Amino acid sequence: MSSRPIITLLTDFGNADYFAGSMKGVILGINPEANIVDITHDVPAQDVHTAAFILLAAFRAFPPGTVHVAVVDPGVGSERRPLAAIAENHFFVGPDNGVFSYVFERDPKKRVFNLTKDAYFRKPVSETFHGRDIFAPVGGALSRGIPIQMLGEEISDYVLLPSLRSVPRDERTITATIIHVDRFGNCVTNIALEQVSDPSFEHGIHIRVCGHEIKRFQRFFAEDQSEDVFALWGSAGLLELAAFRKRASDLLNAKRGDEVLVLLEP
Amino acid sequence: MSSRPIITLLTDFGNADYFAGSMKGVILGINPEANIVDITHDVPAQDVHTAAFILLAAFRAFPPGTVHVAVVDPGVGSERRPLAAIAENHFFVGPDNGVFSYVFERDPKKRVFNLTKDAYFRKPVSETFHGRDIFAPVGGALSRGIPIQMLGEEISDYVLLPSLRSVPRDERTITATIIHVDRFGNCVTNIALEQVSDPSFEHGIHIRVCGHEIKRFQRFFAEDQSEDVFALWGSAGLLELAAFRKRASDLLNAKRGDEVLVLLEP
Amino acid sequence: MSSRPIITLLTDFGNADYFAGSMKGVILGINPEANIVDITHDVPAQDVHTAAFILLAAFRAFPPGTVHVAVVDPGVGSERRPLAAIAENHFFVGPDNGVFSYVFERDPKKRVFNLTKDAYFRKPVSETFHGRDIFAPVGGALSRGIPIQMLGEEISDYVLLPSLRSVPRDERTITATIIHVDRFGNCVTNIALEQVSDPSFEHGIHIRVCGHEIKRFQRFFAEDQSEDVFALWGSAGLLELAAFRKRASDLLNAKRGDEVLVLLEP
Repeated sequence: MSSRPIITLLTDFGNADYFAGSMKGVILGINPEANIVDITHDVPAQDVHTAAFILLAAFRAFPPGTVHVAVVDPGVGSERRPLAAIAENHFFVGPDNGVFSYVFERDPKKRVFNLTKDAYFRKPVSETFHGRDIFAPVGGALSRGIPIQMLGEEISDYVLLPSLRSVPRDERTITATIIHVDRFGNCVTNIALEQVSDPSFEHGIHIRVCGHEIKRFQRFFAEDQSEDVFALWGSAGLLELAAFRKRASDLLNAKRGDEVLVLLEP
Repeated sequence: MSSRPIITLLTDFGNADYFAGSMKGVILGINPEANIVDITHDVPAQDVHTAAFILLAAFRAFPPGTVHVAVVDPGVGSERRPLAAIAENHFFVGPDNGVFSYVFERDPKKRVFNLTKDAYFRKPVSETFHGRDIFAPVGGALSRGIPIQMLGEEISDYVLLPSLRSVPRDERTITATIIHVDRFGNCVTNIALEQVSDPSFEHGIHIRVCGHEIKRFQRFFAEDQSEDVFALWGSAGLLELAAFRKRASDLLNAKRGDEVLVLLEP
Repeated sequence: MSSRPIITLLTDFGNADYFAGSMKGVILGINPEANIVDITHDVPAQDVHTAAFILLAAFRAFPPGTVHVAVVDPGVGSERRPLAAIAENHFFVGPDNGVFSYVFERDPKKRVFNLTKDAYFRKPVSETFHGRDIFAPVGGALSRGIPIQMLGEEISDYVLLPSLRSVPRDERTITATIIHVDRFGNCVTNIALEQVSDPSFEHGIHIRVCGHEIKRFQRFFAEDQSEDVFALWGSAGLLELAAFRKRASDLLNAKRGDEVLVLLEP
């Protein structure tokens, strides 16, 4: 453990209420040396898929051993289990609703624990704010070096979202999805750089999305300053649809969940 | 004092300007070891009531000795006094406009000081940004262990908002108010858990608000997944009106300040 | 270097994506002792002028030696150069697009370096996110005490925006501009306190903006509680147009870039 262990927070609590601040207070009460970093509190309310994507895109920028507390939790208070996990040498704490799916699917050696030891919880545990009463204190405990297997029982039947990975429809087509629209209107797809082995992929790119055809690939936003939408490899390692100083999502009338067809050269 | 004393910030400065960042710079210039935590900067502009509620709901999650700097300050530059206080073993710094009311009314042993010692201010003191020039540096001074009585003169005529507490209208009715609508549309009332001694309260609940009748009580959001609005004890210890995956405020057409009648069983 | 060197972040990345969090992760991987402070991530997308103003207004509140990483970077991936600079005893890291102009124009002794030493970058360097891959790690390196001249080659042909300073049109008129509208609707002009030597300036003020005439000067917002717009010296040391508990920008129908004529007494 570093002298200033890092705990990240990723929630849908917004920044206007007392929720995120309360989690930080609880963590610092348990570990005054914790270095708390907000990833975001602006996940759309109860949107587990977006939370899972943001976490995937952000966590690897942090050093190994970082504790990531992710709380997008419409099932708070119900039978859904609270989890802690270790995957890709990072720790994860949050509800068992799939928020860690995209990290988990990348690490076959992950270990996942049901948080059954309430000795590490803040008491009394409310039935509406486990972020403050369960996940923040457990994150604080992990940051103090408490071994993860002390926190509960290892499980293997945790909830998984459908894989983030796009799938080839046939030899000539990949069916993909817009999984995120970022602040700039860039449309992030679930086509990963490591999925595409054909070196001509970028050269001959042909994409159908929302009734538009995209046949241009760029390396960076300002490469060609026309108004057309183009494809590029984004900083999360995924194919994005973008436009220079314009919102591709507006130009395409595209939103999260829309289908993206990539037509490969024969 | 901890080796990393905590200073929280709660303002209406938003996150898009230089205001909050400037306060942090000033604090760190005075105490490089300060651990600055944002509670929120998104209090609606000049809304002292909301600031007072958020502070009440958040401060107890922090360890004793935390310094809370709260700046919602339409009277900046005028004769309104700058304050520091100690209440419930936490420190509070901000304008004398009632922002600390709800904390103060819970601690009969609180001590409140008018900040008359400008040696602790940043010079020159602007007439429009006491957050940076008075409250941040005084918070920094407190976090370094300067005794609060060194900062000014003790007073007892500080401004108080009307009590947050709801009052029984008669033996069969409590008249309450919606004091906050949170990010999820949950409507927080000023009925506190400790006010309600009757164990049948939850069982026979009957609420009138904005022309709607609410007769359902739940322990947590996902308990019953119908679309109706229900009552539950929220994480601030206050009765809330909520709905599962819906915004109760929209379903009720309710907003802050609306009256809530709780009809008790005869 | 302090034991907890400060690194500020100022971007247009918003708070809802993984961008700002990723920069923090990279910095902490390089310097676990760094104290990262958000100035803002809500600069309007690709708005270098606003970023330059916010940085100018905020940086002096921080102690000397602070590292300011500013990333509003529509040219990311193109030939635009990455910079580090030292000016007014602070460090600055970001793209060569003018974002540091207003700081640079205040320090004739500034030194500016083109970041040619990619040993300090995160690898592989993406072509779309130099905030994470170049500017954050270089900021981390500076915060560890790496001498700035180790990072690249000194240059003098960096990009400058037009001067922020307003200019006298003739002996009786100053032509100025609204350079920022803040959260409260206050309209910040580019007339600096140090530009105005005439002690009668405030007394006889006469401003024309958006078809309105403003002849009132106040020291602070609550001084006169009428609904009219008035002028006052704002906390950034610039003349602002404001109104008490109203948005001057709405009352004037004013926006950034609008012309402000100040008519001086004969």
